[in-house]
Amino acid sequence: VNEFELIDLVLSTLGDTASGDPLVLGPGDDSAAVLVPAGSLLVSSIDSLLADVHFPADAPAALIGYRSLMVSLSDLAAMGAEASHVLVSLTLNTVDAAWVRQFALGMREAALSTGVKIAGGNISRGPLAIHVSVHGFCPPADLLRRDTAQVGDQVFVTGALGGAAAAVAEGFAAVKDVDPDAVTPLQQRYFKPQARLSAGKTLRGTAHAAIDVSDGLLQDLGHLMKASDLQARIDSSLVPVFPGADLAQALHGGDDYELLFTAAAMPAQLGVAVSRIGELVSGSGILVDGKQVTADGYRHF
Amino acid sequence: VNEFELIDLVLSTLGDTASGDPLVLGPGDDSAAVLVPAGSLLVSSIDSLLADVHFPADAPAALIGYRSLMVSLSDLAAMGAEASHVLVSLTLNTVDAAWVRQFALGMREAALSTGVKIAGGNISRGPLAIHVSVHGFCPPADLLRRDTAQVGDQVFVTGALGGAAAAVAEGFAAVKDVDPDAVTPLQQRYFKPQARLSAGKTLRGTAHAAIDVSDGLLQDLGHLMKASDLQARIDSSLVPVFPGADLAQALHGGDDYELLFTAAAMPAQLGVAVSRIGELVSGSGILVDGKQVTADGYRHF
Repeated sequence: VNEFELIDLVLSTLGDTASGDPLVLGPGDDSAAVLVPAGSLLVSSIDSLLADVHFPADAPAALIGYRSLMVSLSDLAAMGAEASHVLVSLTLNTVDAAWVRQFALGMREAALSTGVKIAGGNISRGPLAIHVSVHGFCPPADLLRRDTAQVGDQVFVTGALGGAAAAVAEGFAAVKDVDPDAVTPLQQRYFKPQARLSAGKTLRGTAHAAIDVSDGLLQDLGHLMKASDLQARIDSSLVPVFPGADLAQALHGGDDYELLFTAAAMPAQLGVAVSRIGELVSGSGILVDGKQVTADGYRHF
Repeated sequence: VNEFELIDLVLSTLGDTASGDPLVLGPGDDSAAVLVPAGSLLVSSIDSLLADVHFPADAPAALIGYRSLMVSLSDLAAMGAEASHVLVSLTLNTVDAAWVRQFALGMREAALSTGVKIAGGNISRGPLAIHVSVHGFCPPADLLRRDTAQVGDQVFVTGALGGAAAAVAEGFAAVKDVDPDAVTPLQQRYFKPQARLSAGKTLRGTAHAAIDVSDGLLQDLGHLMKASDLQARIDSSLVPVFPGADLAQALHGGDDYELLFTAAAMPAQLGVAVSRIGELVSGSGILVDGKQVTADGYRHF
């Protein structure tokens, strides 16, 4: 199996998730071409997921594929953007057609559930890693930024936190034998995060600022506060803790991919649970239960 | 130096290449936001450059940065697109602020010379590699595709070929000691390729099909013939060979990043030398000097 045969295998597995609107030209040329709706901004981000840093290398390939796409799409959700298309660069140590097919099936499942198209990519030989560039559309006035939170805003978070961290703490020793369709609820939080694209879109015009919880609630809230030059006061008893996780995991654990946002009041129905966890005042940093905290979470170095 | 300090260092080094039109929102949020000109398609590609596969790990960081951006932009040139912005994911084994600053300076030089903006990216710990997602704009009718070559077209290539392969053959033993501003002409071909963006744009409406020469003339011509379902007949005496390279390197060597295109006749001034090297007939594959050849070049596996 050479590079071009692997690409053919990926494309036949992706099927209709690699063609159709908004793709004018899909995979197979030097670049893809996409029709951007008039009046929309293009919203773009890139993410890297490295084996045994960002996911266990021996996890089922379908879960790795699914998770890679969802984790990357979460950056679009945090902007209030509608996901349109992604480009995927896969590096592989060994050429294993069965692995690649399962990986593509996982990507396909995530693409189908979000409506995103896979516009192109490449495969090269190297340490197992997935690099995903994600793109979406958003009206200019509706962009959810980090630097526009306001004094007096309430702080909200979708879903429940700490589940992914609890899954990591539990360990993934048996994950390679797991049926991707039968992971436990905790493992689901790690391997099958849901990019909150619909909630992000619904928050247009309501949320004043937003970020996704990728590195940990306090660390990501710290980014928001630094960008907006405000102080957050969090009541830890209001932080939604995922069943099986503890409060420390909910405050510091990464990989949840929920939306953390600020708004004047509880927003209308988002299609997902929303918790108010605190409020914003002038100042800087974060107080949890009245005590100043270091905004720590996952550090890449 | 942690991840966020490294990012600050990169952004201060990139300076005005990471802000300004068409960026509405540059690096620092969950995603960047870009204004796409009305009536233009968005043209997008992703490329991965791995240390000691796609470049020597001990080469000067400025050359690695420069080359990574140019190699990736070449995919936009091959579509006739105008480069707009890129996203860069950098993985690093060791945190070396001086290396990162030189790398960013190289990226900055390539960005300044092409007018492209660096819209965002990330840095994580892992084997040295650069993943670049490139984006540009092109009117829908002007896209230079691979599958639209026509019977009777002449085959053209910009510049001269084989120089990068000759540089690789010569070896890079001393490259780590090289002043990035004083590489030899052959090394220049490898480390400082020029994405033919201006030539690609000028070929809109004139070229019937195009591809960039990344894997080798015959291999890339093979892709073009396969996509267009035609046969190319090449006269090897017409292939422009870079001084210091030989014909085999010009035919099979990769990394030149010249444009290979087909058109009814020699195009008007492209701002770079253009050579007619053959013509297209019905059939498939490639004949060089009347002999059928295997379209070989660089294979990633």
